[in-house]
Amino acid sequence: MMAAISRFSVPETIDELPDDIRRSILSVQEKAGFVPNVFLMLAHRPDEFRAFFAYHDALMERTSDTLTKAEKEMIVVATSARNRCLYCVVAHGALVRIYSKDPLLADNVAVNHTVADLSDRHRLMLDFALHSAIELGEFSHAWQKRLAEVGFTLDDCWDIGAIAAFFGMSNRLVTLAGTPPNPEFYTMGREPRR
Amino acid sequence: MMAAISRFSVPETIDELPDDIRRSILSVQEKAGFVPNVFLMLAHRPDEFRAFFAYHDALMERTSDTLTKAEKEMIVVATSARNRCLYCVVAHGALVRIYSKDPLLADNVAVNHTVADLSDRHRLMLDFALHSAIELGEFSHAWQKRLAEVGFTLDDCWDIGAIAAFFGMSNRLVTLAGTPPNPEFYTMGREPRR
Amino acid sequence: MMAAISRFSVPETIDELPDDIRRSILSVQEKAGFVPNVFLMLAHRPDEFRAFFAYHDALMERTSDTLTKAEKEMIVVATSARNRCLYCVVAHGALVRIYSKDPLLADNVAVNHTVADLSDRHRLMLDFALHSAIELGEFSHAWQKRLAEVGFTLDDCWDIGAIAAFFGMSNRLVTLAGTPPNPEFYTMGREPRR
Amino acid sequence: MMAAISRFSVPETIDELPDDIRRSILSVQEKAGFVPNVFLMLAHRPDEFRAFFAYHDALMERTSDTLTKAEKEMIVVATSARNRCLYCVVAHGALVRIYSKDPLLADNVAVNHTVADLSDRHRLMLDFALHSAIELGEFSHAWQKRLAEVGFTLDDCWDIGAIAAFFGMSNRLVTLAGTPPNPEFYTMGREPRR
Amino acid sequence: MMAAISRFSVPETIDELPDDIRRSILSVQEKAGFVPNVFLMLAHRPDEFRAFFAYHDALMERTSDTLTKAEKEMIVVATSARNRCLYCVVAHGALVRIYSKDPLLADNVAVNHTVADLSDRHRLMLDFALHSAIELGEFSHAWQKRLAEVGFTLDDCWDIGAIAAFFGMSNRLVTLAGTPPNPEFYTMGREPRR
Amino acid sequence: MMAAISRFSVPETIDELPDDIRRSILSVQEKAGFVPNVFLMLAHRPDEFRAFFAYHDALMERTSDTLTKAEKEMIVVATSARNRCLYCVVAHGALVRIYSKDPLLADNVAVNHTVADLSDRHRLMLDFALHSAIELGEFSHAWQKRLAEVGFTLDDCWDIGAIAAFFGMSNRLVTLAGTPPNPEFYTMGREPRR
Repeated sequence: MMAAISRFSVPETIDELPDDIRRSILSVQEKAGFVPNVFLMLAHRPDEFRAFFAYHDALMERTSDTLTKAEKEMIVVATSARNRCLYCVVAHGALVRIYSKDPLLADNVAVNHTVADLSDRHRLMLDFALHSAIELGEFSHAWQKRLAEVGFTLDDCWDIGAIAAFFGMSNRLVTLAGTPPNPEFYTMGREPRR
Repeated sequence: MMAAISRFSVPETIDELPDDIRRSILSVQEKAGFVPNVFLMLAHRPDEFRAFFAYHDALMERTSDTLTKAEKEMIVVATSARNRCLYCVVAHGALVRIYSKDPLLADNVAVNHTVADLSDRHRLMLDFALHSAIELGEFSHAWQKRLAEVGFTLDDCWDIGAIAAFFGMSNRLVTLAGTPPNPEFYTMGREPRR
Repeated sequence: MMAAISRFSVPETIDELPDDIRRSILSVQEKAGFVPNVFLMLAHRPDEFRAFFAYHDALMERTSDTLTKAEKEMIVVATSARNRCLYCVVAHGALVRIYSKDPLLADNVAVNHTVADLSDRHRLMLDFALHSAIELGEFSHAWQKRLAEVGFTLDDCWDIGAIAAFFGMSNRLVTLAGTPPNPEFYTMGREPRR
Repeated sequence: MMAAISRFSVPETIDELPDDIRRSILSVQEKAGFVPNVFLMLAHRPDEFRAFFAYHDALMERTSDTLTKAEKEMIVVATSARNRCLYCVVAHGALVRIYSKDPLLADNVAVNHTVADLSDRHRLMLDFALHSAIELGEFSHAWQKRLAEVGFTLDDCWDIGAIAAFFGMSNRLVTLAGTPPNPEFYTMGREPRR
Repeated sequence: MMAAISRFSVPETIDELPDDIRRSILSVQEKAGFVPNVFLMLAHRPDEFRAFFAYHDALMERTSDTLTKAEKEMIVVATSARNRCLYCVVAHGALVRIYSKDPLLADNVAVNHTVADLSDRHRLMLDFALHSAIELGEFSHAWQKRLAEVGFTLDDCWDIGAIAAFFGMSNRLVTLAGTPPNPEFYTMGREPRR
Repeated sequence: MMAAISRFSVPETIDELPDDIRRSILSVQEKAGFVPNVFLMLAHRPDEFRAFFAYHDALMERTSDTLTKAEKEMIVVATSARNRCLYCVVAHGALVRIYSKDPLLADNVAVNHTVADLSDRHRLMLDFALHSAIELGEFSHAWQKRLAEVGFTLDDCWDIGAIAAFFGMSNRLVTLAGTPPNPEFYTMGREPRR
């Protein structure tokens, strides 16, 4: 595939990849209609590919009654925007729009969540994500209390911080490889769902 | 109109505004199909409204053979993104898409122009805009020489710096007033023109 | 006139300038005894010259019972000092001394308003100006309340933020052009008025 | 075990843990003589524990002819010191001393690698690690060329950036949990090996 | 004397001070016509007073053929301005004007030495002072070579760095005590000497 | 002696040094068993050597019932770590371990005192030292009150700020000279005293 996907090697064809990685790529292609570039970029290191997506799924697909999929993706977009990671802002911005069914939310979170028209819960969630991922600030009792007041459990606090930390790593890997977002992501979910 | 447009007073109706300001608002409404919020926000200060748009037009509608309208709007988006001004990123992002006919360009410029797939000319243009508006850096001979090498005249250099400076002011006024972008801006120009 | 006034073109003589701009320059010369360099620097762009000074006057000559001319100039000096704009600190420092009749005030504001012997009102005014112009911080209810407690109306809050924003632009234009302060400004108002 | 190991839940006893996680903990205990606190801290999330250590091992135990174990640990210490992560600086400082057999190296890297008496290769390796993990800087051709000149392959460049990114995540998780280093780490490897 | 000179104790009268300190204060009073506040502020700690002024004189009164008194004071002003120390900028600004016989130089150095009309020698001298005192940057061979090219010996390089370091300490002591500049300093040397 | 001790001249032999400086060096050698490099580095400027150590002793050997020697050295280590001065962190880290009889304390203070297991008194002491030395923050009434609550007198507040300021200067001098720590410092006091 195209060299432009990474500064490191990318597979000529997915046929040369280990079975589990090829199946993983075919599965996302079936669901999304295209292969997100980050799958091809990470394929040059199969063990890291496996660990990365196992970690991703452990965090992002963990069921929770108190932290929604849309909220998790908002954390990704806010963190990635501060880290200026084009791939992650655009790709996960699409997921924010899709999960929240709000076509404006991703742009608001990416540019400046503090001035956007967000609920107190969402504002504080993103404040804490950035405090943790960008400022490397402590998780004090004061933070825990404020987060509990808007409905977050202690487990949610871990999720917020861990998702922000994981995508902080992801932002750096994508920046290292120079991987661009697939064009499809830019427009996904821009029309309000009915 | 809605209080949410500004922390300062906004006109109940445009009928109460001075003639020239009302005409200016009706004219933009006719062209865009809606009144951009910043017109209503600035209307509480008629003299400043007039000077702001006179300055805006002097910079943005000045004819030039060497600096395009799309390029001017790219400067606005890059500067406003670094200043985290939601209104300006969203509203001028729409103009970048419309003038450039490229539905992906505005997001690329807003998130990180240095990693996006831009021409050397556009990358350097935005480097200089941010050097000037964000770093308050000097316009050295070295900068002038590099900008000339990608086709910018001395007059263009002034335009780049002056547009970035003017929208730096605009970013601060919008942040002061807390003015949100009109929803229409988010999706304008997302479909490639034919 | 001297090339050293700007990195961009400056008029050989003011006779070649449009009538209104020439009159504006002659008028300031009559009042001050010399032509401030920024007038000659901006003359290469007549429309921008007109809009700049229309905006300047709308902000700085707007009559107010609650925000004095000396206070407005203090905002300019504090903002310009943080932006390290030599021209604006020196030129508007002269105006601070003249309007306040305090020969020490401008230096205090330029170096560090937080340690200088200022009233609570002036300290907070400058805190807010820098919060707005330098930090691009929000104008929260908490700020509005604190500013009201030292006598500032909502209109004054706009003036403080808008003056700081306008001179932030001015700082960048002067830095772009490399315009030095006229020597006369350095010593104006250094003797206490009687 | 002690609550002080984490702000989140830690196992009362390792007997309650899933088999594979218990075996992993017993194995490190056998090798080190104690259980590093981070194993107990992460045990509250078994899936994340598994993915974290799978990722860790994929990076840190990957065989390489051109990047040594001591060098990998130097990258961890330099990154963690800039992120001010006490656990990681102390624990991986021990590993730097053990693998390098140099009892002074870890402190030099932690405080300031640029003034320490390092080889050009090691100085550049750490410059790039911090450029990538702390500055989120790009991996330009210029960087690749400079790294090649001191003997790093393209694969090594990935390893340097990926290790720095992974431990940037680790630094944030440890800060979130408030996990202190085990006392044993502080003194390991302080005596030169023979 | 006045409490306002320091947040710590100041002598009621200089008669209560140790002989050598009293003589030192009387001597500066005779020369300057007033007692600079920093002498009274430091008097609460006689041993530190003695060491401070011994250090000050060792640096500032050391004879040199290649580094003038005016240049030394320029280093003090540039460093103190970046540290936002009102006392030191104002007091040493007076000394810059007196030694250089240039009434504009101190303000230029305080606001922004990089845009002021300085010689290459002076610009580089101040660049290095700030690199050393503000950035804590290294004194590389490249710096030494550039400084030699504008006439500075290796001994001068030490003087530049050591003066900037000493006044960095002085800036912090004055900030700690909250000591204001004497009014006399603001206007000293503003008239060009003949 | 070795050129590597400084980028400036170091004495060939201490016999060539002035009597008092030679005695001072012999005295520290007798006590420590080796000559700390900073003594040899400063010897090229005898007057500055004398003033430096007079100042050092005035601050560090001043008797106090309320601020211990171990606490003073903690201030030095915290400040020097933020200034990334390898010599001072390593040399004064040894003194922290020796005076406190705690072999872990120095590393905790150097890497991140805010997450380390310190008393409230020590945490606040170091917060204030860094506020003063690194942030150049003011010594407000609020700070004085908080420091008093954990047992610090007004004199202690001066000591904390002055020690941090003095070693800020020392950090810069060592960085200027490029002086490395003596190897002996790294391991001193690592075994708990009995």
